Amino acid sequence: MDDSQDSGTQTAYLGIDVGGTNIKAGVVDDDGTIISQASVPTEREQGPDHGIDQMVAAAHQAMRSTDYELEQIPAVGLATPGTMDIPAGMLLEPINLPGWDYFPVRQTLQDRLERPTILQNDANAAAYGEYWAGSARDARSLIFYTLGTGLGGGIIIDDAIIEGRHSHGSECGHVLIELDNGRYCNSGQYGTLEAYCSATALLRLFNEAIEAGRQSSVTGRLDDITALSPLLIAEEAEKGDDLSNELIMEMARCLGAGIASTVHIIDPDIVLLGGAMTFGRYETDPGRRFLQRVTEEFQARTFPTLAEEISIDYATLGGNAGFIGAAGCARRALLRGDI
Amino acid sequence: MDDSQDSGTQTAYLGIDVGGTNIKAGVVDDDGTIISQASVPTEREQGPDHGIDQMVAAAHQAMRSTDYELEQIPAVGLATPGTMDIPAGMLLEPINLPGWDYFPVRQTLQDRLERPTILQNDANAAAYGEYWAGSARDARSLIFYTLGTGLGGGIIIDDAIIEGRHSHGSECGHVLIELDNGRYCNSGQYGTLEAYCSATALLRLFNEAIEAGRQSSVTGRLDDITALSPLLIAEEAEKGDDLSNELIMEMARCLGAGIASTVHIIDPDIVLLGGAMTFGRYETDPGRRFLQRVTEEFQARTFPTLAEEISIDYATLGGNAGFIGAAGCARRALLRGDI
Repeated sequence: MDDSQDSGTQTAYLGIDVGGTNIKAGVVDDDGTIISQASVPTEREQGPDHGIDQMVAAAHQAMRSTDYELEQIPAVGLATPGTMDIPAGMLLEPINLPGWDYFPVRQTLQDRLERPTILQNDANAAAYGEYWAGSARDARSLIFYTLGTGLGGGIIIDDAIIEGRHSHGSECGHVLIELDNGRYCNSGQYGTLEAYCSATALLRLFNEAIEAGRQSSVTGRLDDITALSPLLIAEEAEKGDDLSNELIMEMARCLGAGIASTVHIIDPDIVLLGGAMTFGRYETDPGRRFLQRVTEEFQARTFPTLAEEISIDYATLGGNAGFIGAAGCARRALLRGDI
Repeated sequence: MDDSQDSGTQTAYLGIDVGGTNIKAGVVDDDGTIISQASVPTEREQGPDHGIDQMVAAAHQAMRSTDYELEQIPAVGLATPGTMDIPAGMLLEPINLPGWDYFPVRQTLQDRLERPTILQNDANAAAYGEYWAGSARDARSLIFYTLGTGLGGGIIIDDAIIEGRHSHGSECGHVLIELDNGRYCNSGQYGTLEAYCSATALLRLFNEAIEAGRQSSVTGRLDDITALSPLLIAEEAEKGDDLSNELIMEMARCLGAGIASTVHIIDPDIVLLGGAMTFGRYETDPGRRFLQRVTEEFQARTFPTLAEEISIDYATLGGNAGFIGAAGCARRALLRGDI
């Protein structure tokens, strides 16, 4: 009893980040520091009701290693992939959660946890995490890119999340970079940045180059159990494979151009790159050169003031950005009186 | 005395819109309705101190035909072309006001009028005017394009003006549409929307087509006193000139693509097109076809939900949007406690 009262002096929030493979939950303090965290499989093919069971399991697992009881948590933040209707708390047709269409995920989870719960898009939540507690904690505004299978985005301006009137805001992967003869993107559009700058794009470009007769040391590593992956391409790039390096640098060039375009709309303090497709970040030579090439291209395509003032950097919260940011969004909603 | 007390029961704001040619001033009531307005020449070549005299003259001229005294005006809004530092109230290097560089325009005007004064970018102010009192008055968010010599933009989301951290936000003309071999834009960038969609772009494209051997009825109208202009091209388009129609429709296609790109960042309620380069709007056949072509291209390049939900329309306040919006920005600053 004394224990729980002590821990209650510092408010804590629960964040839950639902991915196609895993659900991560974390208890986060009022400064965005992680108190505890847990991960369970999503098992998405078992449908949304089972998914809710898994979210609840992750929440309880995260709570267990803290001094808090669930009833001491004033608000829960839930992050899911889109498409969704954020104000309605409803999934629409989430491409990474097939079969979960039109599921009222916010209300269902809130009923189970019996705590006020808010829903946010996963990329927006990760952006908010970086803004609240990560690389952008000293910034007032941020454009965040999450480089993965696709290219997600989140934009925060003075604590406002640019989620859009139809929950389609901050889709930074869907800015245009090629008007005509643009490459195909899985969203159904042509010439958008995601078609040039994502794991999907990189693998397609690699396969096209091999089919066109290019040589690469990557092909020597492929066998029955090793499939082509961005990681293989990054590893061979570091060893000096020309094709791998070319493709990574071309991806950086396109990203730099897309960043300039979005910066001219938002003009933020900082631009951050997160997600798995960041080639080891500062830890590897391709990671360092990727960021350098992105920055060069951005600077060549923007106004001198913005080239000088706006830095592009890697995000720091990694795979925890989503649940930290979801918790932050819950805290924000509480402070704003939204819940 | 009784008169001024009566008029004082309704708060009024003064808006001043400084253009390269004229300064417009207007007294606007609390609902954004114009009470009176005036216009004086900018005479920009006589420098910023003379420019301030002209702003003061326009202000007094607008005030004279109202029942208000200047001391009853709680706040003044000033809109100028960029570049500028909005929070500092400072012009930087405004391309349309050569020689006015680094002029502290806000403080100087405030000292002369002895009323609290705010500075805003002219395209942002026009956007705010449409948001507050024009075509977007029922919308919560808006992307506004002003089609003129260049292509300006203004974005409003839930009463926030996206002016950016370095006063370079909402530059909707500077999104990229062509990654490689893009056309040159006067901003020094290549492949940005303004290079395809502005009066400057249209005249360049026309001249290139004529040089390449294309025929047009426009050339028959050019003589010593009649120079090539967008109006001539629009008039000949209406009469059926093929080249004029092609160029206008291509401009519409590019604009539709650029709108899709920006919509994927902002996802607003509505998109509005203002400025002189709107080909007579609904009043002419080219104006109607221009909007239709913009809309078609936008819809082809966006998500089904957004194609269905977001309308693109012409703005309604015309050349008054700037001073109405400047007055609205002054009112907004007062209500927010910024001044």
